[in-house]
Amino acid sequence: MTLPLHVVILAAGQGSRMKSSLPKVLHKVAGKPMLHHVIDTARALGSAGIHGVIGHGADQVKAQTPAEDIHWAMQSEQLGTGHAVAQALPNLPDEARVLILYGDVPLTRAETLRHLAEQVSEAAIGLLTVELDNPDGYGRIVRDEGGNVQSIVEQKDASGDQLRIREVNTGILGVSARHLKEWLPQLSNSNAQGEYYLTDVIEMAVKEDIAVKVAHPQTGFEVQGVNNRIQLAELERWYQAEEARRLMTEGASLADPARIDVRGNLSIGQDIVIDVNVVFEGEVTLEDNVEIGPHCFIRNAVLRQGARIDAHSIIDGADVGPGAQVGPFARLRPGTELAKDAKVGNFVETKKAVVGEGSKINHLSYVGDAFLGRNVNVGAGTITCNYDGVNKHQTRLGDNVFVGSNTALVAPVSVADGATIGAGSTITRDVETDELAVARGRQRNIQDWQRPQKK
Amino acid sequence: MTLPLHVVILAAGQGSRMKSSLPKVLHKVAGKPMLHHVIDTARALGSAGIHGVIGHGADQVKAQTPAEDIHWAMQSEQLGTGHAVAQALPNLPDEARVLILYGDVPLTRAETLRHLAEQVSEAAIGLLTVELDNPDGYGRIVRDEGGNVQSIVEQKDASGDQLRIREVNTGILGVSARHLKEWLPQLSNSNAQGEYYLTDVIEMAVKEDIAVKVAHPQTGFEVQGVNNRIQLAELERWYQAEEARRLMTEGASLADPARIDVRGNLSIGQDIVIDVNVVFEGEVTLEDNVEIGPHCFIRNAVLRQGARIDAHSIIDGADVGPGAQVGPFARLRPGTELAKDAKVGNFVETKKAVVGEGSKINHLSYVGDAFLGRNVNVGAGTITCNYDGVNKHQTRLGDNVFVGSNTALVAPVSVADGATIGAGSTITRDVETDELAVARGRQRNIQDWQRPQKK
Amino acid sequence: MTLPLHVVILAAGQGSRMKSSLPKVLHKVAGKPMLHHVIDTARALGSAGIHGVIGHGADQVKAQTPAEDIHWAMQSEQLGTGHAVAQALPNLPDEARVLILYGDVPLTRAETLRHLAEQVSEAAIGLLTVELDNPDGYGRIVRDEGGNVQSIVEQKDASGDQLRIREVNTGILGVSARHLKEWLPQLSNSNAQGEYYLTDVIEMAVKEDIAVKVAHPQTGFEVQGVNNRIQLAELERWYQAEEARRLMTEGASLADPARIDVRGNLSIGQDIVIDVNVVFEGEVTLEDNVEIGPHCFIRNAVLRQGARIDAHSIIDGADVGPGAQVGPFARLRPGTELAKDAKVGNFVETKKAVVGEGSKINHLSYVGDAFLGRNVNVGAGTITCNYDGVNKHQTRLGDNVFVGSNTALVAPVSVADGATIGAGSTITRDVETDELAVARGRQRNIQDWQRPQKK
Repeated sequence: MTLPLHVVILAAGQGSRMKSSLPKVLHKVAGKPMLHHVIDTARALGSAGIHGVIGHGADQVKAQTPAEDIHWAMQSEQLGTGHAVAQALPNLPDEARVLILYGDVPLTRAETLRHLAEQVSEAAIGLLTVELDNPDGYGRIVRDEGGNVQSIVEQKDASGDQLRIREVNTGILGVSARHLKEWLPQLSNSNAQGEYYLTDVIEMAVKEDIAVKVAHPQTGFEVQGVNNRIQLAELERWYQAEEARRLMTEGASLADPARIDVRGNLSIGQDIVIDVNVVFEGEVTLEDNVEIGPHCFIRNAVLRQGARIDAHSIIDGADVGPGAQVGPFARLRPGTELAKDAKVGNFVETKKAVVGEGSKINHLSYVGDAFLGRNVNVGAGTITCNYDGVNKHQTRLGDNVFVGSNTALVAPVSVADGATIGAGSTITRDVETDELAVARGRQRNIQDWQRPQKK
Repeated sequence: MTLPLHVVILAAGQGSRMKSSLPKVLHKVAGKPMLHHVIDTARALGSAGIHGVIGHGADQVKAQTPAEDIHWAMQSEQLGTGHAVAQALPNLPDEARVLILYGDVPLTRAETLRHLAEQVSEAAIGLLTVELDNPDGYGRIVRDEGGNVQSIVEQKDASGDQLRIREVNTGILGVSARHLKEWLPQLSNSNAQGEYYLTDVIEMAVKEDIAVKVAHPQTGFEVQGVNNRIQLAELERWYQAEEARRLMTEGASLADPARIDVRGNLSIGQDIVIDVNVVFEGEVTLEDNVEIGPHCFIRNAVLRQGARIDAHSIIDGADVGPGAQVGPFARLRPGTELAKDAKVGNFVETKKAVVGEGSKINHLSYVGDAFLGRNVNVGAGTITCNYDGVNKHQTRLGDNVFVGSNTALVAPVSVADGATIGAGSTITRDVETDELAVARGRQRNIQDWQRPQKK
Repeated sequence: MTLPLHVVILAAGQGSRMKSSLPKVLHKVAGKPMLHHVIDTARALGSAGIHGVIGHGADQVKAQTPAEDIHWAMQSEQLGTGHAVAQALPNLPDEARVLILYGDVPLTRAETLRHLAEQVSEAAIGLLTVELDNPDGYGRIVRDEGGNVQSIVEQKDASGDQLRIREVNTGILGVSARHLKEWLPQLSNSNAQGEYYLTDVIEMAVKEDIAVKVAHPQTGFEVQGVNNRIQLAELERWYQAEEARRLMTEGASLADPARIDVRGNLSIGQDIVIDVNVVFEGEVTLEDNVEIGPHCFIRNAVLRQGARIDAHSIIDGADVGPGAQVGPFARLRPGTELAKDAKVGNFVETKKAVVGEGSKINHLSYVGDAFLGRNVNVGAGTITCNYDGVNKHQTRLGDNVFVGSNTALVAPVSVADGATIGAGSTITRDVETDELAVARGRQRNIQDWQRPQKK
C-alpha cells in the first residue's frame, strides 16, 4: 500500500536580494504569490497534509495565505534546509511519504512531482534532478557505473571530472517520514556555512543501501528558484509563454504570443482572436468567436459568444452578452451586465448597470446603478447622477427610451417605456410612457456680442 | 519562348489542429487570410491563370475570396497532393508552366517563386528546396556526385546517411503542364497513407532524364506551412519583423521593432517616429516628419506632413492635415478630415467631421456629422446631437466660432462666423454672425442647504 | 602627475543611411540625441575640455546642443577620422591626454573610458578593443608573441591567420596631445578611400616604441556605432534592457522587462510594481510602494509613497501625493498636484489643478486652472470653463464642496466651503459657504410625444 503523501514547503527565507519589505515567497508570479503556486500544486497532488515552514515575515505570510489546510511550523533561526524541515517533523505522521518543496521555486509541474513522489517508499528516496547546459554553482549528481546515484558533490568540492557532470540537484526530494525522522537528527552543521543541509540525507540513504530514485522536470524553469526580481521576471515570462501556447493550442489566435498576460484562470472556446497587449486577471471566460482588440484589460468577466471588445477597453466584473460590442475606450466596472447585442462605446463608464438587449450607450457617458430595458438609446454625454454625497440611487430606463445628449438623470428617477428625453436636460422627476421630458433654459441670441479682450 | 505561367494553389485541407470552424487557409497573417497572401503573390508573378483547389469549407473559402481571376476546382475527398493538383488539371492549358503553391504556406516571396518558375521548361522541372538546421521529419533531397537531384527520400525511408542531409523538400515545385498531364495519372496510392503524392513526379522526371533544377528561398520562413495557431503566430511575428526592418530602412525610427504591427500597406516618408505598440491596418500613409505616440491604432488613414498623434489615439478612415495634432486619447472615426494645424484632444470622438485650419476640439467632446470652419474653438464637453433616434443631422460652425463648454448643439443647426455660444447651453436654433447665444437656467443660490443624510 | 583629460567627439558625418534630414548624431537613443549621450559621458569623466568636431548639419547640431562647455571645431570636408581630429587640434593644450570618441557611438560606459584614459601617458597610448564572435569587416588587432599590440590590420589587407583574430579595433583611443600634434600631420591619405585615418597613429606609436595599452568594454553594445535606424533600434533595446535590469535590482517588479521604456532619469524606491508597456520620460521619481498599471505614460512627475496609477493613464508634469489614486484613463497635465489620498478617475483631464486631500474627480471631467480644497467631490461630467477665448481664469472650490454631475463652472468663480452645486448647473456667480446653487431649466413632461420619422 502506498503511504499517504505529505508536502513540506520551506518558506522561511528573507530574500534580501529582492530589496523588499515583503517576504520573498509572497512575491507574485502571474498575479499569485509564489508560495500559493506551490500550495496549489501540493493540493493538486492530493496531499494528505501540507506543512509550511515559515520564519522571516511569518505573520505576513500567514495573513496572506488564509488556508485552513496548511500546518504552519516556525523556523525562528535560519540554520539550513535540514533544520527547516526538522521544524515540521513533529507534525508529520510516521507512515508517510514526504515531499520537500520550496516557496521560492513556484512553477514545478504537478506531474513532475507526482512522478517524483511515486519513487518514494520506505525502501527508496526520490530525488529531482535536472540536466543543465551550464551546471555552474550547482551540486553535481555523481553516479556509479551502474548509474546509481552515489552522492551529491557541491561545486567547491568537485573534482575536474565531476565539474563536467551536467546533472544537478534541484533540492526537491521525497523521502519516507520514517527515514526523515531517523536521518534529520543526524545531520551535522560542521561545514563552512555552519548549516544543516537537507541534501546530506542522500549520503545517509546510500550508506544504508536505500535506493535513490531519480525524476526529472520537463524543463529547467520548473525547478528555477527566485532570489531576485530578475529571476522573478524570468519565471513570469516563462509562465506567460506557456499560457500563450496553451491558448493557441486550444483555439485562440494570438497576434503576439509574447504580448499577452494571463494572471488567473482564462477559459476559452474556439476561434477566439486576441490582439496585442491584452492582460487578463482573475476568472475570465471567453466563449466562441470572441474578439478582443489591442491594449485591453479584462478581469473577472464572462464574454459570451461572438462578443467583441475593441481597443483600449477595460472590463472588470462584468458579463458581456452574446454579440455585444464594447469599446474602444470603454470601461465596464463590477456589476455591469450587457444583454445580447448591447453596445457600450468610447469614453463610457458603467457600474452596476444592467443594459438590455440591443441598447446602446455609445459615447462619453457615465451609467451607474442603472437598469436599462431593451433598445434604449443613451445619447452622448449622459450622466446618471447616482450619488448625492452620501447615498447611491437607482436610475431606471424602460424599453425603447431615447435619452438626448448631454443629459443628467438625477437618481432616483425612472423613465418609462418609449419616453424621450430632450438633449441638454437635467431630469429630476419620473417620466411616463411615451412622454417627452425637457428641462433646459430658453435660447437667447444676442446681437453684436463683444468678446472678452486679451488682458 | 517561355511558356505562360499558371499557378495552382492547394487549399482544400481542413486544418483540424487549428481548432477552428474556419477553413485553415482563411486564417490570417498580418490581417489577411493566408490564401490571399498566396493569391497576391501569384498575381505579382504575372500568372496567366490562378487555380484554387478547395475542399473543406469550400463555400466559405470562395465567399471570402471574391476574386474573379481565380479558377476554382473542387477536391471533394482529400486523397493527397497529387490528387489535389489533378482536380485543377482540366483547367490548365497544355502549353504552360505550372507552379504548385499551398494556401497554408503564405509568405513565399515573389522573387523566390519567380526564380523557381524560371527553371521550368518542357525539359526541366523546378523544385524549391531549403537547408534546415534540423531537417527532422522532412523529405531529404538526395543528389548524385554531380550534384543532380536524384530523389526525395521521406524521413521514414531514409538511411542513416540520408538522415544527415539538411536540404529538404518544401513541396513547392514547377512543372510543365504537359508533364503534369502525363505524370499525374501515373501516380500511385500504394503507400501507408493511401494517398497520391505530388512529389512522386520528381522520381518520374529523373527516370525520363528530365532535369530537376533547384531554387531556394532566402529563409525558412518563406516555406513554413501552418498547421496550428502556434505556427500561425510564428509567421505573423516573422512578417512583422520584416515589416519593421523595411520601415527602418526607409526612414522610420521605431522605438521597438518587436512592438509594431502592420496589417495592410503602410507607406512612409522620411523622419517618421513611431513609438511602442502602434498597430496599423489597411491603407495608411505617413508623410514626412509624422510622429506617432505609444499605443495608437491607425487604420485607413492619411497623416500629412508633420502631423503628430499622441498616445492612446485611434484613427480610422481619417485624413489628418499637415501639422495637425491628435490625442492623447482621441478617436477619429471615418469621414474625419482635419485641416492644417487643427487639434483634436483627449476623450474626443469625431465622425464625418470636417475641421477647418487651426480649429480645436481639445477635450471630452463628440463631434459628428459636422462642418467646422477655421479657428473654431470647441469647448470641453461639447456634444453635437446629430441623431434624433432615426435620422442623422448636420451641425455647421462658421469661422472663428467659440463654443463654450458643456454645450449641446442640437442638429440640424448652424452657427455663423464669429458667433459665441455660452457655456452650458443647449442650442436648438441657428445663431447669426457675431451673435452670442445662451440657453441655460438662471442660477439660484439657496442658503443653509441641508445635505442628504446617510440612509 | 596625470595630464588633464580632453575629449574630442567626432560628429561631422551625414549618415545618409539614416534616410533623414536630421544629422546622424542628433538621432535619439532613449529620448536623447546620441551626441548628448557622448557629451554626458565626457562630463562624467571630468574632462577638462570637450571638443565637438562637426560638419554636416553643423548649425542644427550646435542649435540642439546648447552646451557652453563644448568647444566646436568645423570639419567642412569629410576627409577621414584623422582629418577630423586635426580640426580640433588647435584647441587642445600640449599637456593633455586626449580621448577620441564618436557621436554615433553613444553608449560607451564612463568606467570603460576611465579605464582607457588611465592607460594614456606621454609614454603610452590607449586603445579600446573588443572581442567579437563575428569580427567580419573590422580591423583586427595583431599582437606579437609577448602580447603587445603591433598593428591594426584592416579586413581587406588581412591574411588568413589574421582574419581569424577576433579582437578588433573600436576606433576609440586615447593619446597624449603632444603625440597627436606630432603624428596627425604625418598621416597620409594614399589609400583607396583617399582619407586620413586616425588609426594609423597606432603604427606610428609602435614605430616609436610607445606602448599601446589596451582596454575593453564589458559588452560589444558599448562600442556599437549607428549607421542606420536598425542599429539605432538595437542600441535602444539594449539600453532599455539594461535599465530594466537596474530597476529590478533596485527593487522594482516588472511584469515584462522587455516591455518598459525609460527615456530620462527614473529614480525608484522599494517595492515598486510596474505593469507592461509603461513609458517613462524626463525626470520621474517613484517613491516606495508605488504601483503603475499597464499602458501608462509618465513624464516629469513625482509619484509619492503608495500612489497607484491605473491602466491607460498619462501623467505629465504632476505631483501625485501619497496614497493617491489615478486612472484608469486619466490624464494629468502639467501643474497638477494631488494631495494625499486624492482620486482622479476615468476620462478625466486635469491641468494646473491643485486637488486637496481626499478630494475626488472620478469621472469624465475637465478640471483646469483650479484649486480644490479637501474632501471635495466633483461629479461626473464637470467642466471648469477656464478659457473665454483669450484669457484663462481660475476656479476655486473650498473644503467639502459637492459638485453635482454635468456641471459647468464658468471661471473666474469661487465656491466656498461646504457648498453644494445641483446637477446639470452652469455656475457663473460665486457660491457662499453651505449654500446650494442650482442653475438649470425646469423640467416639463409632454404627453404622447411623436418621435421623428425616418426620412
